[in-house]
Amino acid sequence: MIGAEIAGSCPPDFEIHDVGPLHEAGNGVISFLDNRKYLEAFESSRASACIVDPRYADRAPDGMALLLSPQPYKAFALVSAAFYPPAKVEASIDARASIDPAADLGAGCSIEAGAVIKRDARIGKRCRIGANAVIGEAVSIGDDTDIGENASLTHCDVGARVLLHPGVRIGQRGFGFAIDPKGHVRVPQLGRVIIGDDVEIGANSTVDRGAGPDTVIGDGTMIDNLVQIGHNVRIGKGCVIIAQTGIAGSTVLDDYVVVAAQVGIAGHLHIGQAAQIGAKSGVMRDIEPGARVAGAPAVPAKQFFRQVAALEKLIKKKSE
Amino acid sequence: MIGAEIAGSCPPDFEIHDVGPLHEAGNGVISFLDNRKYLEAFESSRASACIVDPRYADRAPDGMALLLSPQPYKAFALVSAAFYPPAKVEASIDARASIDPAADLGAGCSIEAGAVIKRDARIGKRCRIGANAVIGEAVSIGDDTDIGENASLTHCDVGARVLLHPGVRIGQRGFGFAIDPKGHVRVPQLGRVIIGDDVEIGANSTVDRGAGPDTVIGDGTMIDNLVQIGHNVRIGKGCVIIAQTGIAGSTVLDDYVVVAAQVGIAGHLHIGQAAQIGAKSGVMRDIEPGARVAGAPAVPAKQFFRQVAALEKLIKKKSE
Amino acid sequence: MIGAEIAGSCPPDFEIHDVGPLHEAGNGVISFLDNRKYLEAFESSRASACIVDPRYADRAPDGMALLLSPQPYKAFALVSAAFYPPAKVEASIDARASIDPAADLGAGCSIEAGAVIKRDARIGKRCRIGANAVIGEAVSIGDDTDIGENASLTHCDVGARVLLHPGVRIGQRGFGFAIDPKGHVRVPQLGRVIIGDDVEIGANSTVDRGAGPDTVIGDGTMIDNLVQIGHNVRIGKGCVIIAQTGIAGSTVLDDYVVVAAQVGIAGHLHIGQAAQIGAKSGVMRDIEPGARVAGAPAVPAKQFFRQVAALEKLIKKKSE
Repeated sequence: MIGAEIAGSCPPDFEIHDVGPLHEAGNGVISFLDNRKYLEAFESSRASACIVDPRYADRAPDGMALLLSPQPYKAFALVSAAFYPPAKVEASIDARASIDPAADLGAGCSIEAGAVIKRDARIGKRCRIGANAVIGEAVSIGDDTDIGENASLTHCDVGARVLLHPGVRIGQRGFGFAIDPKGHVRVPQLGRVIIGDDVEIGANSTVDRGAGPDTVIGDGTMIDNLVQIGHNVRIGKGCVIIAQTGIAGSTVLDDYVVVAAQVGIAGHLHIGQAAQIGAKSGVMRDIEPGARVAGAPAVPAKQFFRQVAALEKLIKKKSE
Repeated sequence: MIGAEIAGSCPPDFEIHDVGPLHEAGNGVISFLDNRKYLEAFESSRASACIVDPRYADRAPDGMALLLSPQPYKAFALVSAAFYPPAKVEASIDARASIDPAADLGAGCSIEAGAVIKRDARIGKRCRIGANAVIGEAVSIGDDTDIGENASLTHCDVGARVLLHPGVRIGQRGFGFAIDPKGHVRVPQLGRVIIGDDVEIGANSTVDRGAGPDTVIGDGTMIDNLVQIGHNVRIGKGCVIIAQTGIAGSTVLDDYVVVAAQVGIAGHLHIGQAAQIGAKSGVMRDIEPGARVAGAPAVPAKQFFRQVAALEKLIKKKSE
Repeated sequence: MIGAEIAGSCPPDFEIHDVGPLHEAGNGVISFLDNRKYLEAFESSRASACIVDPRYADRAPDGMALLLSPQPYKAFALVSAAFYPPAKVEASIDARASIDPAADLGAGCSIEAGAVIKRDARIGKRCRIGANAVIGEAVSIGDDTDIGENASLTHCDVGARVLLHPGVRIGQRGFGFAIDPKGHVRVPQLGRVIIGDDVEIGANSTVDRGAGPDTVIGDGTMIDNLVQIGHNVRIGKGCVIIAQTGIAGSTVLDDYVVVAAQVGIAGHLHIGQAAQIGAKSGVMRDIEPGARVAGAPAVPAKQFFRQVAALEKLIKKKSE
């Protein structure tokens, strides 16, 4: 199932009934090693089996069955999902949900207590709308999508198999106004938010509707908690955006960009495909495809680490 | 209406029916140019008309009508608001809202499903209280104010024409306790939050009630998403505070201060009128009126950019 | 009650009826001085009494009664709590709350309108479940705990006397998936969140459930607004974590760690007991017990301030 090679101790009647972390896993449990930091935990683990990179195989304790894989974390993800498939949605509509008669619900949905679904909303099949979530007028949601508790959606189209975690805010007015000493003038925000398939957006993250064009999040993009996505931002496919990052208005991320935690990206920038942005970076310029940057203002990662070293040297010299 | 001078191609039966961005706008649509970055989009735009700074007028494509304005974005805001006036609130009280008999509702309000309005709350005229929002005991709200879905307000007075976006938290207990190894001792938080007129506060932002004095946000101040305002903070009129910024307890911002994204301002500081604070700054000292600062710790912006240049030079020298 | 020594002017019929800040307190009101910044306010205060460190006693205005204490803020906290004890929970279950018949409620709870309590949840005595909050399946909550409006809890055990502020998100799926160009593979998240007694978690903060092991927050730990706690993080007792900080997956904080605002701590690290981390730090390595660090990447605080000074010198030299 995971394309691994079997090694280590594997008796004929060998059976695994659960997954677990190295230091907790015991008899009948499979674990994984993905980070050098946990080599000691691996060496002393009592897990019956472990998915591991071939180069660490000789560090395994006696009696442990090994599954050798060049991608142990991905392999563990697949094994773990086989033991714990996502819970099936039980079709049921709570009497305390508030569903507009002009909303359209697919078959097999679970609509929890206190959920509010407004006029002309269209919800796909087998969706879960969590307790006290609010689905705004004319919002559309694809099949098998899960909307977390207390989340709110407006002015948006959401794809299939999407996970929006509790407290997510999608489609509210962006931060658009003309600064004026006599009173800032609000600019009407007229676009939507378009969210592709298989997207995940973390708890309490916020995605503003477009000002004129739409705000777009591509298929398979993963967004962590407390992330801010400004109006008109366009994010490609398969991107990963870690917690507390903010992306300002009209910036474009091509596919497979990885943005670490607490990064700020200024507005109107273009981040090339598969670029990687280090934690806490402040990005003020376009980034080339595949580039790795860090620092605030962000520079190529190598340069950033040279800066850090240079500063360290500078104060050593001074204190000599 | 916007005080612009007409130029370019403008036939007698000329009619505009919509607004749009440069690259999408076509026949009958008006757009604007406010950022040099979009000069190319301007040159190839098929918009029938464009609001533009006079100095870029000669870059306009043939056949485009021009509205010359020194403040194109403000002018566009006014035009756009004329095409898309804010939706009028339809008076209606959803049967699934929960309104205490001792609450006072002005005429023409829209109270959506699941909204909870507690004892002695006073809501002005033509307000919208979004679905599943919670208005706490004795909270007062001025006329024409909009409270977003799932927002919660307590211990606060809110002005007129205010927009509080979904998930905003106003008036909860601030982070007040005396640190003590035997168990931190909570300090009762006794103040309110006072929010002026025409304020906007973005999705999932948090404003704590005062500890003893009140937390205050002045008229016309605009606050973006995921911003944290600590207890006793006093913010003046017309300030602009961009996403993910945090202002610690008891700090004072005078009028018209602009704070870019992801800034941190320490507690008990005084930020002078119209000061400007660059993105990701860490402010640890008072700031003079009109000053521009950047960096962490924040220094005058010119100094910050010299620091950045000096660091760059330092590592170049080293690698030579 | 607070172990203070009485000094200054204290007539026989002296009576105090309220607490207040130095610049607002008047006749019959007690205040405190804890920060040198407010010495002027102290000197001109009209408070009848003030809790103050002995070394500032001679700066007191005439006629003020003094309570000399080496910990004025803690003493003020105790006095203030005596005047304003936490409101007692009034037992009542709103008819608009939605409580599963298989949930277990202790005596004396206040369950507000729109609150949703799911199957097999166990709530202790005298708890308040705020309006539109959601308590997930099999969640357990200790006595005298307060769950704020619109908060949501799932997969967690919460202790006694805990304050979870409005919009808090506890126990949702963590950010766990294996990155893969053919589509990131989600890793099932199987752990819980365990929250000790006397914990406080600020508005709109997020705490993810463990991936395999649990996410743990120790007794008496105080967490401010908009903080992110990743999966498997273990936080000790009595820690203080200030606003907008993020702690990445599997990191361990020992007891009494203090983390200032907007800090980022990378995953899989170990932060020793009573370490102190300065605002906006980016922590990329383990920290020794008792150490003080600052900067991004974080270094010992002294070194950070030397770096700041060195940079300042560098550009001065250049501009000479």
